[in-house]
Amino acid sequence: MSSPVLIALDWGTTSLRAYLLGDDGVGLDARASSAGVMKLPAGGFDQAFEETCGAWLDAHPRLPVVAAGMVGSAQGWVEAPYVETSAGAEALVAGIVTVKTARGVAVHVVPGVLERGALPNVMRGEETQIFGALASEPSLGASGGALIGLPGTHAKWAFVGNGRIERFYTFMTGETFGALRDHTILGRTMHPSATHDEAAFLRGVDTARDAGHAGLLATIFSTRTLSLTGQLTAEQQPDYLSGLLIGHELRGLNEVLVRERSALAGKKTLRLIGNDALCDRYRAALARFGCHDAPTAHATERGLYRIAAQAGLVAAPVRAA
Amino acid sequence: MSSPVLIALDWGTTSLRAYLLGDDGVGLDARASSAGVMKLPAGGFDQAFEETCGAWLDAHPRLPVVAAGMVGSAQGWVEAPYVETSAGAEALVAGIVTVKTARGVAVHVVPGVLERGALPNVMRGEETQIFGALASEPSLGASGGALIGLPGTHAKWAFVGNGRIERFYTFMTGETFGALRDHTILGRTMHPSATHDEAAFLRGVDTARDAGHAGLLATIFSTRTLSLTGQLTAEQQPDYLSGLLIGHELRGLNEVLVRERSALAGKKTLRLIGNDALCDRYRAALARFGCHDAPTAHATERGLYRIAAQAGLVAAPVRAA
Repeated sequence: MSSPVLIALDWGTTSLRAYLLGDDGVGLDARASSAGVMKLPAGGFDQAFEETCGAWLDAHPRLPVVAAGMVGSAQGWVEAPYVETSAGAEALVAGIVTVKTARGVAVHVVPGVLERGALPNVMRGEETQIFGALASEPSLGASGGALIGLPGTHAKWAFVGNGRIERFYTFMTGETFGALRDHTILGRTMHPSATHDEAAFLRGVDTARDAGHAGLLATIFSTRTLSLTGQLTAEQQPDYLSGLLIGHELRGLNEVLVRERSALAGKKTLRLIGNDALCDRYRAALARFGCHDAPTAHATERGLYRIAAQAGLVAAPVRAA
Repeated sequence: MSSPVLIALDWGTTSLRAYLLGDDGVGLDARASSAGVMKLPAGGFDQAFEETCGAWLDAHPRLPVVAAGMVGSAQGWVEAPYVETSAGAEALVAGIVTVKTARGVAVHVVPGVLERGALPNVMRGEETQIFGALASEPSLGASGGALIGLPGTHAKWAFVGNGRIERFYTFMTGETFGALRDHTILGRTMHPSATHDEAAFLRGVDTARDAGHAGLLATIFSTRTLSLTGQLTAEQQPDYLSGLLIGHELRGLNEVLVRERSALAGKKTLRLIGNDALCDRYRAALARFGCHDAPTAHATERGLYRIAAQAGLVAAPVRAA
């Protein structure tokens, strides 16, 4: 078994995931904690870090530590100012800010990425996952360009080319779904269901794809009216609304591609990063747009390892030929 | 002064508005109450009706009573089943259902309108306002067709032609705005403002119009990122988000028109019905889409009077030549 060479932290708003990594980024141990950035009391970072990683450092006191995510925001442990697009891994490395823990260890915090413009965009944490996906599949970062999706509360879609994050979009799909379900009339007739209703979900996706030209605000009321007209049960309504919203996200993404003489249909260089259940939903929805080739890349640890290697904290991974 | 000939009720989810009308629908008295359909206890309709209209009926015991809105829904006083599109005033009259009050008065409840299809739509109350607008301006209902907008929690846009409601859309703009402001990250950096910031509102409208092709889910995050990049103050954010959502509504409506070889730009037969402040916002937003001709028609009482006249409850209004 490989010995540990790096502690890698994915420290977001609602949770902290810590990985003990060996050579080439192989995972040796992992711990998850609910100590997200927005849940910590003032000065709580050090204590959360000790609780999660203290035992690893007791055993291996000189391990380097790298961290990505909201931990580097203005509300985080230390602010690592945004790097602007287009952003390569070398810019992220140059933007690393360190914070010294009570134990005397330097935590290397990776900056997020900012895109300026009429619709500015920011990410923190996803940039590291994207470089993890590129580390697994270097051909993705080649000149032709790839599209990397990170479903979630605030879904990101990044256009990657020449090894850089060129630009990206933020779709507030997950959070809008929660707000509509829990705080509008649409939730009143819904019943939660323990099982995923694939047919209801795909009906929502297809409705957004085929009848969504008037926009999301004009389609979501159908969640209620299909129920009023006996076409959707209370248990089907949450999955239908989820399909509608993800369908509108993909419709919008496709519109961006169409304006560049591309399309989701038949796209071969699209990858998904995220939890399995959500990526499964997105894969099923992408198939309705003719995109059948969207493998999920588990990229978090790999991205943290790659950044650490590029920063000289660990040896560069050995590339398979 | 004209003597009263009709009591007309606009009885919705959150409020009850009652009008005492004279010949030709002229308003003699009005009362508003918070006794909306969703706020009443079981059996509360009779008491709310007495409290609001009892004094009028004491003075004029034989006045007919007509009502429109959610009072005719399955959760209302008596259910007046939906009439299907395309729907003329005669279909609404034929669908009237009466309920006898404790005092022995018959309340004539106007049905709502249902449109079937992949995106079914329903309205209750708006149909009566639309016929009120047509009563004020009969040329609107001519064969060329008109577009009537009713901004609100669930905004409606109805295509009217040949004196009938041919089809309509429901945009959940108002309710989605409230859910996003009060229950997502977007609200966290907002400060409420006592005054309307027209520039921030129009910036939102223009952003939806010019950069909204990826859809609402992809633009709303800019409320936060424009603040992060120092381009929008906390006080401007609510009006910016409001402009974005209304802009997306109009963008979607325009897309519907474009598919029919029409457009909002230059449209002469568009009317707005609703409260003044909200209609002012919509008029300003419509102007950014090139539609400068959207007078507001105050149509509620007129619509109730017209339906009552067509039902033979009152004399038909005298038409101006």
